[in-house]
Amino acid sequence: MKKRIVTISREFGSGGRTIGKLVADKLGYKFYDTEIIERVIEETGLAREIVEKYDEYATHKNSFLYSIAVNAGGDNYSGLSFANRVQVAQVNLIKKLAQEGNCVIMGRGADYILREREDCLNVFIRADMGFRARHVLENYGETDVKIEDRLRDKDVRRKVFYRSFAMREWGACENYNLMLDSGAIGIEKCADIICSIVKE
Amino acid sequence: MKKRIVTISREFGSGGRTIGKLVADKLGYKFYDTEIIERVIEETGLAREIVEKYDEYATHKNSFLYSIAVNAGGDNYSGLSFANRVQVAQVNLIKKLAQEGNCVIMGRGADYILREREDCLNVFIRADMGFRARHVLENYGETDVKIEDRLRDKDVRRKVFYRSFAMREWGACENYNLMLDSGAIGIEKCADIICSIVKE
Repeated sequence: MKKRIVTISREFGSGGRTIGKLVADKLGYKFYDTEIIERVIEETGLAREIVEKYDEYATHKNSFLYSIAVNAGGDNYSGLSFANRVQVAQVNLIKKLAQEGNCVIMGRGADYILREREDCLNVFIRADMGFRARHVLENYGETDVKIEDRLRDKDVRRKVFYRSFAMREWGACENYNLMLDSGAIGIEKCADIICSIVKE
Repeated sequence: MKKRIVTISREFGSGGRTIGKLVADKLGYKFYDTEIIERVIEETGLAREIVEKYDEYATHKNSFLYSIAVNAGGDNYSGLSFANRVQVAQVNLIKKLAQEGNCVIMGRGADYILREREDCLNVFIRADMGFRARHVLENYGETDVKIEDRLRDKDVRRKVFYRSFAMREWGACENYNLMLDSGAIGIEKCADIICSIVKE
């Protein structure tokens, strides 16, 4: 079946966003990454800081439960915590975008949210620490935190975010149709491989 | 760096062997799968049944330790258990084959054994249960054992075999440069993708 939706999960610094953008451009598909944040802000009416905070990173190692606990009672109108409201809006939006089809969706557990659809190609992009460190320093510059710690922190927070609602392992082979090591294969080539599978 | 060696790990029934053979044919690379068994028989002088038994499957869930215990003292000449002798011969052989280059090596922890080489492309092939069940029934026929149980048993034994000497997880994304879902992507297409990366 023709793959009308490409979901791309990625380790921080692996060039996954660049690959996703290239794929969308080459295929003439829509591209959704931070665009999802804007749409969730519109739909929920929540402040940008709140939506960004709960976008696709866990804020603490056990953050989903933590955020429910912290927000409990602070949001009586909907009966849902902020984290929950962001997540529910995100899930509904991703289902709607998939329904419209011909799109690339970055992260946010889209592979899990759309697991019943057969027209999804689920991709995971990874690379070794050295490649990712160079990539992040070139694109985002240095901070006070050691680069390896920044990478590990982001990965752990994505992993925890994913596990908090998917109840399965982020980055485990069985959840994807394709895994590419962008450091070994090259960013352009990764995009070409994805496109060639979609076109098949 | 040009990839002179392709290692292919695969779930049972995913068509990994067919893909490996296609890749070798298309690239003009040598193909090593059961050929490794023949070479180990020659080099160790051990009986075929012993070499096949310890080839790349754990015979019990905790078999490596089990086989050492069972064979201890039964092989005074070398001071090594049969399982160990097969494994040592296999490791040395795989290193030698890699040294000669331009080859596809199926399974046997070759990705781990050759982890220091930069001219290796490490591939993992998987597929969902339905695809694998159909593939195995078509190619090997039925037995008394339920097909899902046969698949799970083989996977577990490869996993345990791998963990017994690699001390890392068989099928975990971080050990490979490329993972392909042969059920979703197609066997021919998987071979084409691997060839196109090697030729790059």
